[in-house]
Amino acid sequence: MIQIPQGFRLAAANADFRNKHLDRNDLSLAFSDAPATAAGVFTTNLFRAAPVLVSQEHIAASGEKGVRGVLFNSGQANACTGEKGRENCLLSLDMVSQALRNAGEEVSSEELLPASTGVIGAQMDMDKWAAAVPALAASLGSVSLEGLARAMMTTDAFPKTAGRELALKGGMVRLAGVAKGAGMICPNMATMLSLVMCDASVEPSVWHDMFRRAADATFNRVSVDGDTSTNDSLYGLANGASGVVVEKDELPLLEEALTAVLGELAYMLVKDGEGATKVMHIHVTGAACDEDAEKVARTVGHSQLVKTAMFGRDPNWGRIVAAAGRAGVNFDPMALRVTLCGVELFRNGRPTDLDFDALLEEPLKNMDLPLDIVLGEGEGEARLLASDLSHGYVSLNSDYRS
Amino acid sequence: MIQIPQGFRLAAANADFRNKHLDRNDLSLAFSDAPATAAGVFTTNLFRAAPVLVSQEHIAASGEKGVRGVLFNSGQANACTGEKGRENCLLSLDMVSQALRNAGEEVSSEELLPASTGVIGAQMDMDKWAAAVPALAASLGSVSLEGLARAMMTTDAFPKTAGRELALKGGMVRLAGVAKGAGMICPNMATMLSLVMCDASVEPSVWHDMFRRAADATFNRVSVDGDTSTNDSLYGLANGASGVVVEKDELPLLEEALTAVLGELAYMLVKDGEGATKVMHIHVTGAACDEDAEKVARTVGHSQLVKTAMFGRDPNWGRIVAAAGRAGVNFDPMALRVTLCGVELFRNGRPTDLDFDALLEEPLKNMDLPLDIVLGEGEGEARLLASDLSHGYVSLNSDYRS
Repeated sequence: MIQIPQGFRLAAANADFRNKHLDRNDLSLAFSDAPATAAGVFTTNLFRAAPVLVSQEHIAASGEKGVRGVLFNSGQANACTGEKGRENCLLSLDMVSQALRNAGEEVSSEELLPASTGVIGAQMDMDKWAAAVPALAASLGSVSLEGLARAMMTTDAFPKTAGRELALKGGMVRLAGVAKGAGMICPNMATMLSLVMCDASVEPSVWHDMFRRAADATFNRVSVDGDTSTNDSLYGLANGASGVVVEKDELPLLEEALTAVLGELAYMLVKDGEGATKVMHIHVTGAACDEDAEKVARTVGHSQLVKTAMFGRDPNWGRIVAAAGRAGVNFDPMALRVTLCGVELFRNGRPTDLDFDALLEEPLKNMDLPLDIVLGEGEGEARLLASDLSHGYVSLNSDYRS
Repeated sequence: MIQIPQGFRLAAANADFRNKHLDRNDLSLAFSDAPATAAGVFTTNLFRAAPVLVSQEHIAASGEKGVRGVLFNSGQANACTGEKGRENCLLSLDMVSQALRNAGEEVSSEELLPASTGVIGAQMDMDKWAAAVPALAASLGSVSLEGLARAMMTTDAFPKTAGRELALKGGMVRLAGVAKGAGMICPNMATMLSLVMCDASVEPSVWHDMFRRAADATFNRVSVDGDTSTNDSLYGLANGASGVVVEKDELPLLEEALTAVLGELAYMLVKDGEGATKVMHIHVTGAACDEDAEKVARTVGHSQLVKTAMFGRDPNWGRIVAAAGRAGVNFDPMALRVTLCGVELFRNGRPTDLDFDALLEEPLKNMDLPLDIVLGEGEGEARLLASDLSHGYVSLNSDYRS
């Protein structure tokens, strides 16, 4: 069981945001007893939901002062809701901070970061918020990490948690993270939400930079369908409650642990991608530069033809090679090598003479498929985790009237 | 019935390239009695098949001299086949030109343009070529436009032909075109092949420019799955056999007719896209420039979430808006307007108050769905035809082992 880092308490409640009277929580809070340094990575979509805009403002304003928590709601995305949506977002923070103050916590609404997922275009039901907030505040400290992960879920098949412990010179430091993935609710697009809590003490600028790099290496290296939502948000809070100040030469260790936690969560997102039956572990090397390698990895990982081939357990080197060839990257086609599950499929401009069908029949039944693409240009390298494209994906995303 | 332009004769034969002993032709030739001005537009994939490379060389060398015909084979793509593939391609042209010379035609193999579709990575079976070429030559002049279109087909559901007649000052001019579309054969990617024949007399440089513009406005404005093949090729031959020299002020009329023929063929390609049940007619206006408009159109048209929504007859403005917002184009989200089948879905940063479900239930049952996206930036404009994403697509492209 993953332990919650020191100085964090979790809360959850059932607000019935979906109007379905389900027996599950859809409102939750990760709360830090002391102000925590906050980092955030958000959707680059032009249509950013109200909670994304408010979170960005609160993080920017937090500076050395820090924030106290992240407030999640599932069922109502509060996206494309205009000025009224922003007012509702701020009102929800007011309600929760007031309830926490009533419980003896000294916290202002500006110290909370909102995160929403669910139906877009509809206004949040503030009566439901008002009814559920007391139960949320009352539950503070009684909810597990998995309980938090469950309350964030939409159509996720399983709750996603990850953690690491790190023995530093000053003592033990903990990291624990939760995420929700590419679940789809009508009429909506997939939203990714994630939070990592850490009880180490880290300089804000150092934490920001470290978090950005860790996110780039993990969450920004996954592909379910290439669509990004209006609400995608990734939060990192470091509250120093362990009493351990991370020394400069220990920062790489912390970054490694943070990257590992985010990496595990990102992997789970792809594995639980809509209808996913496979996770391609794409690794491109030998490109002229890292950017070129990334373009090739993304073009292959996003290719509908490659994705359907993996779903069909088809060692279809032709689709992989053709996707690489249209990535908009210049390379020598004769130098390209493609290896799937350890079996070299393509070399010297031609398929190899191996019996792919026989060699790959069993490996292609696995969930995890390593796909290595080697160019002959330079030292550029990139990794990407990509799901396949299945009947399940089409069913989940088209099941509206049919 | 579409008439074959003057001075063109068509031929077809069954070479059994698929080794399936089917009762259908898979080898065909469009032949011009006189040298014709040739234009070509080819795949930009780094992995270009041998026939693409040879066609490009022959067109480049043809200049004022012209070419005599285009030779199609279906079942063997001759892609990723190395030096041997190139030799086989040239050998196939030698066989056909020799057979034509035996029949009294003065033609060299350099005057023929090869076009292949089918399984990639495998070498062509030259014994099958040798066996079928006499029948091909013997059929010259006895094959209809539809017969040519049928012989090019892979998994296309129907043969694709289009034509126009044009009364110019010098007399009547005809255009007739054929295409094969996004058919999939294992292990392969979709290949698009098309030819337009015209019996007007046009300057080579004028014909080249006109053909490039017409292709950009039509074939380069369709999306089935965003994957481009190693063999995509589009040919245009103008042989002057009508005796009509197009005058300068008539060139726009000819270009309009050419664009109409290519537009009809491109529409049929999308309609017959793998598993397609819908054709989105995406029209983006009000962008800062045409390039921005095209980026938005392509991001929306390629979005798996938008495509599955259309398959599910779901007026999902959220997916459309979110796709536009991640296109990498800067625009004012508040100024965006989205109209589907004439019903305005989104305006002023919010969904409109219309009852989408009631208004769009019937229109979304249609094959053709107009989708208008208006930005508030400038005069930039783009169109794109895009298919939906259905269970049929996944079945066709994953049906290998399952």
